[in-house]
Amino acid sequence: MHGDPNLSPEALERDGAAVLAWIASYFRSLESLPVRSALRPGDVRSMLPDRAPEHPEPFARCLEDMDRVVLPGLTHWQSPRFFGYFPCNTSVPSILGELLAAGLATQGMLWQTSPACTEIESHVLDWLVHLLGLPEAFLSTSTGGGVIQDSASSATLCALLAARERASGFRTRERGIDRPFVAYCSDQAHSSVEKAMAIAGIGTDHLRRIPTDAQCAMRPEPLAERMAQDRAAGMEPFFVTATIGTTAANGMDPLTAIGRICAREGAWLHVDAAMSGTAALCPEFRGMHEGIHLVDSYCFNPHKWMFTNFDCDCFWVRDRQALLGALSILPEYLRNEASESGAVIDYRDWQIPLGRRFRALKLWFVLRCYGAEGLRARIREHVADTAWLAGRIADDPRLELLMPPPLNLLCFRVLDEDDAPTRRLLADLDRVYFLTHAVIDGRFFIRVAAGGMWTERHHLASLLEAIRNGVTG
Amino acid sequence: MHGDPNLSPEALERDGAAVLAWIASYFRSLESLPVRSALRPGDVRSMLPDRAPEHPEPFARCLEDMDRVVLPGLTHWQSPRFFGYFPCNTSVPSILGELLAAGLATQGMLWQTSPACTEIESHVLDWLVHLLGLPEAFLSTSTGGGVIQDSASSATLCALLAARERASGFRTRERGIDRPFVAYCSDQAHSSVEKAMAIAGIGTDHLRRIPTDAQCAMRPEPLAERMAQDRAAGMEPFFVTATIGTTAANGMDPLTAIGRICAREGAWLHVDAAMSGTAALCPEFRGMHEGIHLVDSYCFNPHKWMFTNFDCDCFWVRDRQALLGALSILPEYLRNEASESGAVIDYRDWQIPLGRRFRALKLWFVLRCYGAEGLRARIREHVADTAWLAGRIADDPRLELLMPPPLNLLCFRVLDEDDAPTRRLLADLDRVYFLTHAVIDGRFFIRVAAGGMWTERHHLASLLEAIRNGVTG
Repeated sequence: MHGDPNLSPEALERDGAAVLAWIASYFRSLESLPVRSALRPGDVRSMLPDRAPEHPEPFARCLEDMDRVVLPGLTHWQSPRFFGYFPCNTSVPSILGELLAAGLATQGMLWQTSPACTEIESHVLDWLVHLLGLPEAFLSTSTGGGVIQDSASSATLCALLAARERASGFRTRERGIDRPFVAYCSDQAHSSVEKAMAIAGIGTDHLRRIPTDAQCAMRPEPLAERMAQDRAAGMEPFFVTATIGTTAANGMDPLTAIGRICAREGAWLHVDAAMSGTAALCPEFRGMHEGIHLVDSYCFNPHKWMFTNFDCDCFWVRDRQALLGALSILPEYLRNEASESGAVIDYRDWQIPLGRRFRALKLWFVLRCYGAEGLRARIREHVADTAWLAGRIADDPRLELLMPPPLNLLCFRVLDEDDAPTRRLLADLDRVYFLTHAVIDGRFFIRVAAGGMWTERHHLASLLEAIRNGVTG
Repeated sequence: MHGDPNLSPEALERDGAAVLAWIASYFRSLESLPVRSALRPGDVRSMLPDRAPEHPEPFARCLEDMDRVVLPGLTHWQSPRFFGYFPCNTSVPSILGELLAAGLATQGMLWQTSPACTEIESHVLDWLVHLLGLPEAFLSTSTGGGVIQDSASSATLCALLAARERASGFRTRERGIDRPFVAYCSDQAHSSVEKAMAIAGIGTDHLRRIPTDAQCAMRPEPLAERMAQDRAAGMEPFFVTATIGTTAANGMDPLTAIGRICAREGAWLHVDAAMSGTAALCPEFRGMHEGIHLVDSYCFNPHKWMFTNFDCDCFWVRDRQALLGALSILPEYLRNEASESGAVIDYRDWQIPLGRRFRALKLWFVLRCYGAEGLRARIREHVADTAWLAGRIADDPRLELLMPPPLNLLCFRVLDEDDAPTRRLLADLDRVYFLTHAVIDGRFFIRVAAGGMWTERHHLASLLEAIRNGVTG
């Protein structure tokens, strides 16, 4: 098959160079591209033929369609004017790591199916334990270990399943839910906690949403009270998700207080630090991690703010046996000497799917090509830029800042009894920028998530000007 | 940040060209590389520094480590002598699609977050409904629709959750498991069904393993009997997984008979066709799909035998409302006009994670660059090669073939009361080839999965010679 143009090394080099040039040109054009697609539902599909082609097309036609079909249908997450949801960065070392993973096409489900795929992942996640100041028990050389998941949603589900099994003496996996489990998170926690409760068969009715304070942080007293109340009513509190950087406004749950309550109640404490975890690279931002020694599991997403393209969520547990107890199933056809020796990690037992690609490459390359100091420098710049914008907004008597931004995310609104002026302002800004909103305490806020790789101070200055003009108008 | 070497378009083109050359050279060397890593547990890690670097390294150092650290630690799934597990192919159009996805770094969680990402995926999965002869109800323009999942494991979990919710009137997601659900699959079904039962909180004790016939296919009578028995005992049969191509030996469950039983019992019928589904591209292999009009959901993995690198599982449902009812959660911060209009698909509601990358690109490119005829030609070649090898093994009086291979997977053993000679033969072959085993009816078989892209007839001929020599020895 060496003559097959879809396999030939020559085609890879030739067509690959064209793709690299296309991406390079895309990066150069980000400044001028409208951040938001102008297409209507169905427009992309209407440009595609009804049926798959019977005969081969040259790759060049695919690349032409990147311009004709794809580009107009994109929301440009890499645009310097994208401030929506969360930064979803990529970078050259990350892209090239992904490219190598696609070329090798190894399956990392077992150590045996590619030792390097498993060991580089364990090793790089150990590096990150040190870099982020996480508990030593999270090291793969201790009782725990780290694994790359596709997303924080999946990590939270895995944590919940490990907690469920530990609480039931590892009997739920066989018998099914046979006791009144109940779990907790704040009223600002991510929807993935609810989704995990639904998937795990415990039900969203058994997730308690604990009220937050003015900084969008979980209040520990109502948590303790609700747990006591549930226990008195015969329920079994088994799992708490604390959020480091809530989705809407970047609230930071107090881990020390929550951790003490969990220890008392024997509940598993999971931390979702999806976006904000990256900031722990810088010692001066580690205040948010106070109490981290009390948590059972933790996840954050390098695919958000750490320059590694999706999917790359890093997930650690203190006790890997609990996770294995929840997710390990060993059929005959996967048996092998290395696994049975117990000397290796088989990551299929650490996640929902069986298969997995070599995602550690891109993370390894990012850490090396930036260096820890390089990563810190960028995070500090993003935080400083956000603080700068927050200061200008706070100074404007027509605007209201929800709170001083802890890191790279701020929320503001037009000072008015009504939400309408803020909604109008958002619609106005959305012609040039991509921003999303949050509703906090019943009031409508505009969110600015400012960790985009291509975003510089002058983009925030232009946004500020647009905000000022929009409020006037 | 345009001057940042980790972001600069110039660095992407320069370092990217080096990576393409590295992969091209890797492809050229596949023939001569030992298929199996000779490293011992911990060897890869011992080549890595204890801590992440503080200062940036040039990308070239990463590429050097591909040779020094990664290459010796790989199991070469792309080797023409890899016959283990399943083919895990990649191809030039697939690699370049993945490269573009990494460069764009779009998030496809909502239609709004990149219309092209959603619409190309729906469209290409509609193409495949036609190409594979799947039910029209699976089309996104009908009551159903398709979505790319990371793996068949996740697809099966999603199908099970949709079935669980439909059976409970969509109350389990809120209330938790409150009825005695029971599910069914054959004793040859993949371990992911068991894993899904554990995750969903129903428990593996409530999964019935139905016996199979001599062709490793589920026997319908015991299924019907067991369901009736369970129902009489107050259980609720809600979900059946039929396998098209079992993992161990490629058994094909009879969909017509199973589908009729499911229709009578009101149970959801899911089909796991992970590897073998690709063969349905060829009309002459569609006998395995007889009864497909009776199924509720179906999945197969282009990342196995359809030349698209992991992860790419295609999953269809007949009734998308059931799937949405199981997995849709809409928090305020994801609300947007397009979603609320109901005119678009938001794929976050079709899967476990929230985020998703632009995986449709690689699948779209593969279908175009091969063309349907090109794909069929390769599948036919793999099936013919497997039949050729099976014929030679059947002709050898010292060897026993489990059954004539339906497609690209055969199982054989040394004709002996004992398994020891087969185990010795496998150990012998494993010095040059990568093969895995299966235990069927208590007997140990060597599996040959023969759909690797670089594998040609002469590789199978060499394998045959090694088998013949090994039996003698």
